[in-house]
Amino acid sequence: MDGVEGVDHLADERIKAQFDVDEMKIVWAGSRHDFNVTDRVARLIASDPVFEKDSRVMLSRKDLFKNTLRKAAYAWKRVLELRLTEEEVKKLRILIDEPNYTDLHWGMFIPAIKGQGTEEQQKKWLTLAYKMKIIGCYAQTELGHGSNVQGLETTATFDHQTDEFVLHSPTLTSSKWWPGGLGKVSTHSVVYARLIIDGQEHGVHGFIVQLRSLDDHMPLPGITVGDIGMKFGSGAYNSMDNGVLRFDHVRIPRDQMLMRVTQVTREGKIVPSNVPRQLIYGTMVFVRQTIVADASIALSRAVCIATRYSAVRRQFGSNGGGLETQVIDYKTQQSRLFPLLASAYAFRFVGEWLNWLYLDVTQRLQANDFSTLPEAHACTAGLKSLTTSFTADAIEECRKLCGGHGYLSASGLPELFAVYVPACTYEGDNVVLLLQVARFLMKTVSQLGSGKKPVGTTAYMARAEHLLQCQCAAQNAEDWLKPDIILEAFEARAARMCVARAQKLSHYPNPEEGFAELSADLVEAAVAHCQLIVVSKFIEKLKQDISGKGVKQQLQILCNVYALNLLHKHEGDFLSTRCITPKQASLANDQLRSLYSLVRPNAIALVDAFNYTDHYLGSVLGRYDGNVYPKLYEGAWKDPLNDSVVPDGYQEYIRPLLKQQLRNARL
Amino acid sequence: MDGVEGVDHLADERIKAQFDVDEMKIVWAGSRHDFNVTDRVARLIASDPVFEKDSRVMLSRKDLFKNTLRKAAYAWKRVLELRLTEEEVKKLRILIDEPNYTDLHWGMFIPAIKGQGTEEQQKKWLTLAYKMKIIGCYAQTELGHGSNVQGLETTATFDHQTDEFVLHSPTLTSSKWWPGGLGKVSTHSVVYARLIIDGQEHGVHGFIVQLRSLDDHMPLPGITVGDIGMKFGSGAYNSMDNGVLRFDHVRIPRDQMLMRVTQVTREGKIVPSNVPRQLIYGTMVFVRQTIVADASIALSRAVCIATRYSAVRRQFGSNGGGLETQVIDYKTQQSRLFPLLASAYAFRFVGEWLNWLYLDVTQRLQANDFSTLPEAHACTAGLKSLTTSFTADAIEECRKLCGGHGYLSASGLPELFAVYVPACTYEGDNVVLLLQVARFLMKTVSQLGSGKKPVGTTAYMARAEHLLQCQCAAQNAEDWLKPDIILEAFEARAARMCVARAQKLSHYPNPEEGFAELSADLVEAAVAHCQLIVVSKFIEKLKQDISGKGVKQQLQILCNVYALNLLHKHEGDFLSTRCITPKQASLANDQLRSLYSLVRPNAIALVDAFNYTDHYLGSVLGRYDGNVYPKLYEGAWKDPLNDSVVPDGYQEYIRPLLKQQLRNARL
Repeated sequence: MDGVEGVDHLADERIKAQFDVDEMKIVWAGSRHDFNVTDRVARLIASDPVFEKDSRVMLSRKDLFKNTLRKAAYAWKRVLELRLTEEEVKKLRILIDEPNYTDLHWGMFIPAIKGQGTEEQQKKWLTLAYKMKIIGCYAQTELGHGSNVQGLETTATFDHQTDEFVLHSPTLTSSKWWPGGLGKVSTHSVVYARLIIDGQEHGVHGFIVQLRSLDDHMPLPGITVGDIGMKFGSGAYNSMDNGVLRFDHVRIPRDQMLMRVTQVTREGKIVPSNVPRQLIYGTMVFVRQTIVADASIALSRAVCIATRYSAVRRQFGSNGGGLETQVIDYKTQQSRLFPLLASAYAFRFVGEWLNWLYLDVTQRLQANDFSTLPEAHACTAGLKSLTTSFTADAIEECRKLCGGHGYLSASGLPELFAVYVPACTYEGDNVVLLLQVARFLMKTVSQLGSGKKPVGTTAYMARAEHLLQCQCAAQNAEDWLKPDIILEAFEARAARMCVARAQKLSHYPNPEEGFAELSADLVEAAVAHCQLIVVSKFIEKLKQDISGKGVKQQLQILCNVYALNLLHKHEGDFLSTRCITPKQASLANDQLRSLYSLVRPNAIALVDAFNYTDHYLGSVLGRYDGNVYPKLYEGAWKDPLNDSVVPDGYQEYIRPLLKQQLRNARL
Repeated sequence: MDGVEGVDHLADERIKAQFDVDEMKIVWAGSRHDFNVTDRVARLIASDPVFEKDSRVMLSRKDLFKNTLRKAAYAWKRVLELRLTEEEVKKLRILIDEPNYTDLHWGMFIPAIKGQGTEEQQKKWLTLAYKMKIIGCYAQTELGHGSNVQGLETTATFDHQTDEFVLHSPTLTSSKWWPGGLGKVSTHSVVYARLIIDGQEHGVHGFIVQLRSLDDHMPLPGITVGDIGMKFGSGAYNSMDNGVLRFDHVRIPRDQMLMRVTQVTREGKIVPSNVPRQLIYGTMVFVRQTIVADASIALSRAVCIATRYSAVRRQFGSNGGGLETQVIDYKTQQSRLFPLLASAYAFRFVGEWLNWLYLDVTQRLQANDFSTLPEAHACTAGLKSLTTSFTADAIEECRKLCGGHGYLSASGLPELFAVYVPACTYEGDNVVLLLQVARFLMKTVSQLGSGKKPVGTTAYMARAEHLLQCQCAAQNAEDWLKPDIILEAFEARAARMCVARAQKLSHYPNPEEGFAELSADLVEAAVAHCQLIVVSKFIEKLKQDISGKGVKQQLQILCNVYALNLLHKHEGDFLSTRCITPKQASLANDQLRSLYSLVRPNAIALVDAFNYTDHYLGSVLGRYDGNVYPKLYEGAWKDPLNDSVVPDGYQEYIRPLLKQQLRNARL
């Protein structure tokens, strides 16, 4: 592990571990192969000074951006030199840990063409894109429209005479706004616009548009393009050129409309292809399962930093000599930190399962089986919302768990937070997504009597009759360790909340009005359903073959911490639906408290299992060796303000004030 | 109001208001006088280009800092020219809205000398400080110690021979770390250090130490001082030179120890003065009530931005032509936003009350009456914790309520968040403070039988017997509008949680062990108690004479929203203690939903009542005139990245990549 220069200040902690850390690393990575690839690429990056990232928070926007361009070019050069595999290239991009235009090129532009382009289009454009002879982005969101894609205002009007589409921005709010890589870099873009033929609108479609000259990078005629300005944080997403784009009657050939699903003929006729439209949902499932996986990464990074620093930091309790108490030994610290640690593992496993779900959906789509699609779509939407909202809050909680020093950029947590929070908004605003889940759940409930069997993660609804009246069997604190008891409590809570809302809805003459009126309550039901999914997938994971001394036991503990903490935080749900009694709630909380003591000795090893390099963590507080204070002290002197002992501005603005000569000073 | 250039895009919203906004402005400000002072100073700043602050996020650390020095000097010049009153100067500092060294000079250095210095010391040092012939800071926190002040390691050793104290930093962790204004500006500091006389320790005391030469600003011999580096956000607290400071046997005359409470004689004898030590708690009450007032300001700014933008933003619901729905009309938006709006008012009023409490405590201290001090101390500690934690989360929630555009620095919310969050940590970590409250509450409960009557905000505990068994009288949703029913539910919840914890504690043979073990649960009881205070002070406020058409009615609605939202969020507490039934919880939630409809038409006017200038808000999304999109678009072009159409770095890092010439490029 890099960063170890000498003494390991956390060695005493590592000795305490009651499980095989190396085996846990494999479990976390998903497989030995995945572990090896990530580990190799991570070391490659950590050892290369070009990928240094500590200075980014001190750079001006321009310098930061230029350095990002440099890193991206250098990375691509290394990819070619080392002949990295596609898998390794992907890891490389993630582990460089600085957003840049290539994220959109590989993550959105290319997949859009793959998913929506005809074979011919793919051949033409992907050949260029794979070699980066062109750089593409994905221009969907506009100044006035984000969530409501159907409300996009950019137009693409078919010109019969020239066989072209004319792209135009008819209003200020139709300006494309936000696309990453658009502002300064992309030469091309997939642009979403309303298709208009002979004055008739035909919905929103994607078009490949060249934006900048391949000779001198100047915007092509009719195109106004630029960066939309600073965003949250000092480094964070400011290395990305999120852009604004306006079209003044820009013409493109007809064959640059992405025509895999819908075609426009030379005559301006719309011809639907035989490719099922549902394919688009498959893509959404894919993108969102990636986001869930990312949530577990971001969360685990924050937790790793907070956990290690909590073992380094001591405060109070020395009572006349001796070392003070490690803050990780305080129950208040444990009750905030350990549920986040458990959540990191929970999200990791639900992400793994979502990956399986995506493959399953893809196979079914290929066999023209669309039966599981709505459920898979609702499930990924809900989990995207649940995990990203939780992770954003959790990173900030980890920052607070580091006390004052968490506020320093050197802690890594401010930037991690700032770079992470957009996940709550992009690819579906989290509240909008939960409303979609709620809609699906209400539909599921309404069909319960009809004989239509709920599938996948809603299968438990088939047992609604039982779940509406069952009584929790927990008699003592130990009972709350039993998966069946936990699972049934979560199922009962979700089922009862859904059914209660459905009943309330049925009192409204107009269902849409009722849905709008009760939407906040519906969101709560959706959350309950999604939390159940995470809990149940964690429990399922534990039924798998897991080797390594003590590994399964640790995961069992984390699973229980995850579930019982949720139960405590949402006690109101469980009690108001009478799924559990106040006495049982209290027993569950007692059990939760005991579990923290079991996590404590393993805490450092449990975050070591994430196998993050110091470079990737980017945190002085989270250093592997725990050598926090000397490194904080050393680091401070590198701030530009310390370039000179007497600061710039002393002569003009401090001295005249001290010398009482301000009245005559020109300021 | 500045910022109105032409059309008021929110005029339709303002017409809807059902109350007298001008009268509400007076209520919010506290008095007509306060309103006038703030309004005058705010306009003064908003109209002066030197105080422009939009560019701060784009500046490098050095440029940002230099500009801050300029603003501070210019502000002081204006103060002298305009002969502003002390009250106006204080407002000026707040409304400039950019942290700088003068905050510490006026807010910590001078008060420390006032509170802890003898009359002689005050005369000498305050004369210099008031004229800013010296600039001071407050050096308490060290690299290794924050919360545990008694653990500070810096030493001040008395030298009998020379009649001096020798200040020294014996370890790396004893380095002073964090003090604002220390890094680059302060000439002097109040330094906290362990007093050592003849090898004996005598606790932590304050010392006035000169750090830099008044001639050339160079650090004096034996002093190492610098900035600790970048912090959260791109502007935020980076305009402040939080510093690091080490002493290598630095000598100061004996009379520079602050000796109001404890004196050291020429012979090195410790002589306690007749000034009561409790004075120090009076200061803490003062500082923390200021922090609560600041919370209501920060929260109201965020709410103002999110509310106005929610009325401007439209998304979905146009169903074939016509305008889309304003997002403020969605119940999900209302159920997230309106409780924050209500909280801003609630915090404002509890802050007002705390100000009264401070004056009350001060008067009592002067009369040697210390009876209310422990309760006042616990109460301010708890409210500091409650309001700052809530506000930090609420600012981020407001940012999310603004959708994607909230992520832009132009929204003002990222910087507001980054600059606000330290409030959760400084002047007492919020969790540590809640544990202090819990300790006080447990003591109060344990004394209930002894005849000692609980005072102030714990007075309700005297009715514990009733509160432990009373049944909530709410029969229908309307009953949840009654202050008595609400108040009793909150009192019963707090009392029952406290008593239950006290009982659990009593099972532990060692009370300290029990306290440590149950600390997370104790924190919950403390929160319940603090929430009760806020609710009850809001209800008390409504009993005051409040004039102006509809003003009291609006506040009544907000009070109910505040209370019922808390009740819903903490339903688990109310249900597990059986203070209310599930049915009553459901009725309360129904009532809450109805209340949102009453807030809706008044929402814009309720945030207008804060009377913030566009300069102070610093948000394109929160502009008074609602002219959001054109201003966002205009603003984007000012980003440094847009200085040139083709970005810096194109030739070196983009072109070679596109032209497939990377292999030979030097990167």
